[in-house]
Amino acid sequence: MMRNFDEFTITEAVLERVASAPDPRMRQIGEALVRHLHAFVREVEPTQAEWAAGIDFLTRTGQMCDDKRQEFILLSDTLGVSMLVDAINHRRPEGATETTVLGPFYVQGPPEFECGADISGAMTGLKLHVAGTVATLDGSPIADAVVDVWHADAEGGYDVQRPGDPAGRARLRTDAAGRFQFWTTRPCSYPVPHDGPVGQMLALQGRHPYRPAHVHFMIAAPGHETLVTHVFAAGDEYLDSDVVFGVKDSIIRPYTEHPPGTAPDGSVMGERYATLSYDFRLK
Amino acid sequence: MMRNFDEFTITEAVLERVASAPDPRMRQIGEALVRHLHAFVREVEPTQAEWAAGIDFLTRTGQMCDDKRQEFILLSDTLGVSMLVDAINHRRPEGATETTVLGPFYVQGPPEFECGADISGAMTGLKLHVAGTVATLDGSPIADAVVDVWHADAEGGYDVQRPGDPAGRARLRTDAAGRFQFWTTRPCSYPVPHDGPVGQMLALQGRHPYRPAHVHFMIAAPGHETLVTHVFAAGDEYLDSDVVFGVKDSIIRPYTEHPPGTAPDGSVMGERYATLSYDFRLK
Repeated sequence: MMRNFDEFTITEAVLERVASAPDPRMRQIGEALVRHLHAFVREVEPTQAEWAAGIDFLTRTGQMCDDKRQEFILLSDTLGVSMLVDAINHRRPEGATETTVLGPFYVQGPPEFECGADISGAMTGLKLHVAGTVATLDGSPIADAVVDVWHADAEGGYDVQRPGDPAGRARLRTDAAGRFQFWTTRPCSYPVPHDGPVGQMLALQGRHPYRPAHVHFMIAAPGHETLVTHVFAAGDEYLDSDVVFGVKDSIIRPYTEHPPGTAPDGSVMGERYATLSYDFRLK
Repeated sequence: MMRNFDEFTITEAVLERVASAPDPRMRQIGEALVRHLHAFVREVEPTQAEWAAGIDFLTRTGQMCDDKRQEFILLSDTLGVSMLVDAINHRRPEGATETTVLGPFYVQGPPEFECGADISGAMTGLKLHVAGTVATLDGSPIADAVVDVWHADAEGGYDVQRPGDPAGRARLRTDAAGRFQFWTTRPCSYPVPHDGPVGQMLALQGRHPYRPAHVHFMIAAPGHETLVTHVFAAGDEYLDSDVVFGVKDSIIRPYTEHPPGTAPDGSVMGERYATLSYDFRLK
C-alpha cells in the first residue's frame, strides 16, 4: 500500500514508483538518484529552514544561467563532479594526452584562423607564442586535425564575459606534419565567476575561487576520440588548489618568458614575449 | 598534493577542500553532499551527454520558477524528499495530528475571514462545509489558533495558477472552544503542474502526475509547534499513488455528499452539498 510512509519506509516507496520507467537506463538513473539523495537527506537531517535554503540555492543557480553563463556547470565543476565524469569517460590508454573539464567558456563555432595568426583580438599583455603537434598514440602525425583554443586574458577574463568581438578564441588546423602554431597574449590565473550562488557556496566552504593560468584545447580528428584538455602554466600559485580540481602534472608546461629577439616562428620581437608548446596524443 | 586526481581519488580531494568551511554545520552538509553526489555519479557512470542532460534539466527547473511557480519544490516533492524531510522534522509524540508536505501553493498572508464565511471566491462546484477543532495533545481546546486553509477547485486548479483574486484560500481563527468552520467548494484530485521539467521527468519515469483531492491546513498557536498538513478525501482513486507520497490514513476523511436540507451550521441548502470535519491535535 502506497501510503503512511515514515522516514524509513519512504525510500522504498519512491524506488518502487520510479521503477516503472519504460527505459532501463532511465530506471537505473532514477533508482540510483533516489537512493543516494535520500541517503544524503537521512544523514544530514536538514531542518525545514535548511531544506528551504537548499531549494532557494538551486533556484537561484538556475536563474543565474543565460547564454553567457552556466552556473550549474560551475557548481558541477566546483564540487568535483565534472572531473569525476571526465575521469569515468576517459579511462585512457597509456600514452594519450590526459583530459580535463570543458569548463563554461567554450563557444560553438569559434572564428577560424590560419596557423601563425595572432588570435588575441582586443586582448593586451605579454605576447605568447603557442606551438603544438597532434599525433596518434604511436606518434604518427595527424594532418588537418581541428584545433579549437580558448583562454583568459592577462586580467583573467574571457571575451564572453564582456561586450565585444571574440578574442583569445580560435579554430586552427594542423599541417601535413601535424603541427599548429599561433600568437596570442599570456593568460593569467583567475577566479571563476563568484558573484552568484556558487560564489556564495565557495565562501561558506572557506574556499578561494581561483584557477591556475591555462589555455583550453579541444582537438578533433576523424577516427580519433575528441580530446578536451588544458595546458596549465608551470609555477602558477594555484596549481595545487584549482577550484575545479582540473590539474594533472602531464598537462603542465612552462610559459617561458624571453627577452626581445627572434621568436620560434622567425618573428623579430622588439619586446619581451613568452612561448608555450605541447605535443598532443589522441586515442 | 591537490592534483592528478583520478576517478577514485577525486572524492577525497573534494572532501578535503570542503572541510575548510568555518561553520561546522556547513562543513557537515558539504562533506555529506560530496560523498553522496560522487557515489551517485560513480554508480551510474554518466556519459558526457547524460551529464549535459542533467545540467540542462537542473537549469530548466530553476528557470521555470517565478513568484507563482516553484519547480524545485515540485522536484523535491515528486522525488519523496519533501516527505522525508517532513518525517525527520516531525517525529511526533503519539496523539499529534500527522503532518504532510507544504506543497508549492501556499501564499504568505492569506485573506482573513470570519468563521462561517464562504471562502470560495470565484470557484464554482459542489458547496463544501468544513468544520474542525484545534486542541492540545491532552484534548484541551486551543482558542484563537490561526488556521490557514487553501485548496484546489472542482477542476483541480489553484487560484494562483490563473489571474484573479484569491479563492479557496483563507485565514481563520478558532473560537473559545477551539472550533472553526467555513464554506467553500469541494476540491478535486489534480495533476501537479507537468508542463515543465518535472512533468518530463514523471513521463520518463512512467508516472502519472496526480494528487488525491485534499484541503491544506497550516495551524499555528503560541506554545505549540505549527502544524502543516492536508485532509484527504476518502475513496479518492489516487490515495495509493499520490505523486508526492503525502497520504497517511490518519488524515483521510469522508467528503460526505448530502441531499438538499439543513447543513451543520443551520444553513438551509437548496441543492446538494458536502461536509468535511477534522479534529486537529497540536504538540
